[in-house]
Amino acid sequence: MPTQNQRAYLAGFLDGDGSIYVRLKPNPTYRYGFQVAPYIVLFQSQKDRKNFERVCSLINLGYLRVRKDGILEYIIGKKDGLQKFLQIVKPFVILKRGQVNLMLKVLEQKEKVRDKKDFQKLMILIDRFRNLNYSKKRKKRILTP
Amino acid sequence: MPTQNQRAYLAGFLDGDGSIYVRLKPNPTYRYGFQVAPYIVLFQSQKDRKNFERVCSLINLGYLRVRKDGILEYIIGKKDGLQKFLQIVKPFVILKRGQVNLMLKVLEQKEKVRDKKDFQKLMILIDRFRNLNYSKKRKKRILTP
Repeated sequence: MPTQNQRAYLAGFLDGDGSIYVRLKPNPTYRYGFQVAPYIVLFQSQKDRKNFERVCSLINLGYLRVRKDGILEYIIGKKDGLQKFLQIVKPFVILKRGQVNLMLKVLEQKEKVRDKKDFQKLMILIDRFRNLNYSKKRKKRILTP
Repeated sequence: MPTQNQRAYLAGFLDGDGSIYVRLKPNPTYRYGFQVAPYIVLFQSQKDRKNFERVCSLINLGYLRVRKDGILEYIIGKKDGLQKFLQIVKPFVILKRGQVNLMLKVLEQKEKVRDKKDFQKLMILIDRFRNLNYSKKRKKRILTP
């Protein structure tokens, strides 16, 4: 576990430059037609890679990748990693408090899905990210089967 | 003075989303032909204004403005404010450590300027921001008189 100051630093970094969201990827091989892919991503210019790696090593719950446009992304996508990171930053986050709490609910609900009704409940939760993240896209989705 | 955790949070926010730089504005009314304008700026989407104001109120050393593109900027531009903010975040900054130290040197040297040689020394310091901030612009400047 990082120190209190490191946790506060990471919360500030997330608030300044991070993103908390869930991608719903249409995928017919999944039971309800969608893969639910939750993410926390921190961004930075590739030119400052060395120092950014120091920040990421404080977290050590995801992986670093370089986008085609040269932006570095530190991606946390696994359930355990997401839950650990959210617990780390939760007491210190200011701007993304809503997203932190919602992501924790989403991860909990995702575990509980037993039938279509549960999955619909999960999707309603996920849709709340659109308001918090101010996405303009709003999609109608049809569950299968 | 903010608490240790608040200081670490602000350092993280600055590293994630902030900018530390000096504008050299050509201005013939100034003794050496340039106004030296140091800045620390934090950015955020206007849609999250309320929470961003909470972050800014932890600092309380600058002012908030809305850019034409809708981005909020919290601007610290006065010497006292800059020095105080730099002291607040200095122990916790990771990515922008170089910029923090350089800005402290610039503010110190700016006070010391008595003649053209001092001003040239100041400009050499300011030019170092170009490497730290990875600006591609590189300018030749001619001092007056």
